[in-house]
Amino acid sequence: MSEHSSQDIDALIEMMAKLPGLGPRSARRAVLHMIRKRALLLTPLADLMQSVAVSARECLNCGNIGTSDICGICASEKRATGMLCVVEDVADLWAMERTGVFKGRYHVLGGTLSALDSVGPEQLRIPKLIDRVDSEGISEVILALNATVDGQTTAHYIADQLEGRVQLSSLAQGVPIGGELDYLDEGTITAALNARKQI
Amino acid sequence: MSEHSSQDIDALIEMMAKLPGLGPRSARRAVLHMIRKRALLLTPLADLMQSVAVSARECLNCGNIGTSDICGICASEKRATGMLCVVEDVADLWAMERTGVFKGRYHVLGGTLSALDSVGPEQLRIPKLIDRVDSEGISEVILALNATVDGQTTAHYIADQLEGRVQLSSLAQGVPIGGELDYLDEGTITAALNARKQI
Ligand SMILES: [Zn+2]
Ligand SMILES: [Zn+2]
Repeated sequence: MSEHSSQDIDALIEMMAKLPGLGPRSARRAVLHMIRKRALLLTPLADLMQSVAVSARECLNCGNIGTSDICGICASEKRATGMLCVVEDVADLWAMERTGVFKGRYHVLGGTLSALDSVGPEQLRIPKLIDRVDSEGISEVILALNATVDGQTTAHYIADQLEGRVQLSSLAQGVPIGGELDYLDEGTITAALNARKQI
Repeated sequence: MSEHSSQDIDALIEMMAKLPGLGPRSARRAVLHMIRKRALLLTPLADLMQSVAVSARECLNCGNIGTSDICGICASEKRATGMLCVVEDVADLWAMERTGVFKGRYHVLGGTLSALDSVGPEQLRIPKLIDRVDSEGISEVILALNATVDGQTTAHYIADQLEGRVQLSSLAQGVPIGGELDYLDEGTITAALNARKQI
């Protein structure tokens, strides 16, 4: 700890610098900015973080992150039953939701199959996906995985498991090779969803 | 507020996106990351922010931000008396401190003179600087202002006020035209400080 500010301020800067997208310099800037906007920014942020730290949890059904055991999407009666959109990550689910186009429910895998990292179906939420297809009477599954090698390997594995049991499709037009959903604009995701092709 | 996560999580993302260097996308990533590292990141960050929100204050003497009315630098008996380094912003003071080269004390102006934005000497901490030169028996003032038009205008104004009363110098070699201190590496700042030229 240096003499120039104070232990707590230094510790806050150090911890902010660990957030993705921030480094030491931007963490220092952010902390000074927050201290200057104490009532508007620092105190509300502290309160919100405290509250989210207590309340945030994974949806037991789909893996989305929310503040209840069953997330708002799974709990909503407005969402089309019978349709599941499978994504790798919560950030991808949120990216899909921002398009407002998909009216069904989601299933978050929590990653992709990877022989290199010893990630098999059991490490992902694939068994739970198979369960849901049966127990929720799913008739259509959209595989909205990233257009990466691991993403596509995972999509093929799931397609094999579900073949003949449901209508399967994957995002098509508009997803660039090597592209990751969370980096795409909403129009591109919408186009890819609308032009999804059957497997 | 959307249905896809929860009010508190959405509010946290929205507020994080207001921090300098973060946008909506990086705020979403940061929040998901924090939720996943709840015990290591989210809870400690909330605690530190709460503590800093209560304790952070401007040093009454120099304008540095710390957690006491008189900052660690002003309070330290190890710092050379008689020498003041004048900077625009707290971030610049911290940048100077990281070099470890300057052994005197600081004076933070809180900005630069600007006719356009109606910032006169009274809006900055210039009167307090003149006071300190007298009351602290300052014999040398280093003007470490940014190499911008406003920074140099401000340096000239201060030099006029203090002329004949103290030895004046400004950072020289190594500060690029239009450059801002907080963007420079520590070696460049050190070189500029060591090669400071008398005005
Ligand atoms: Zn859910
Ligand atoms: Zn001070």
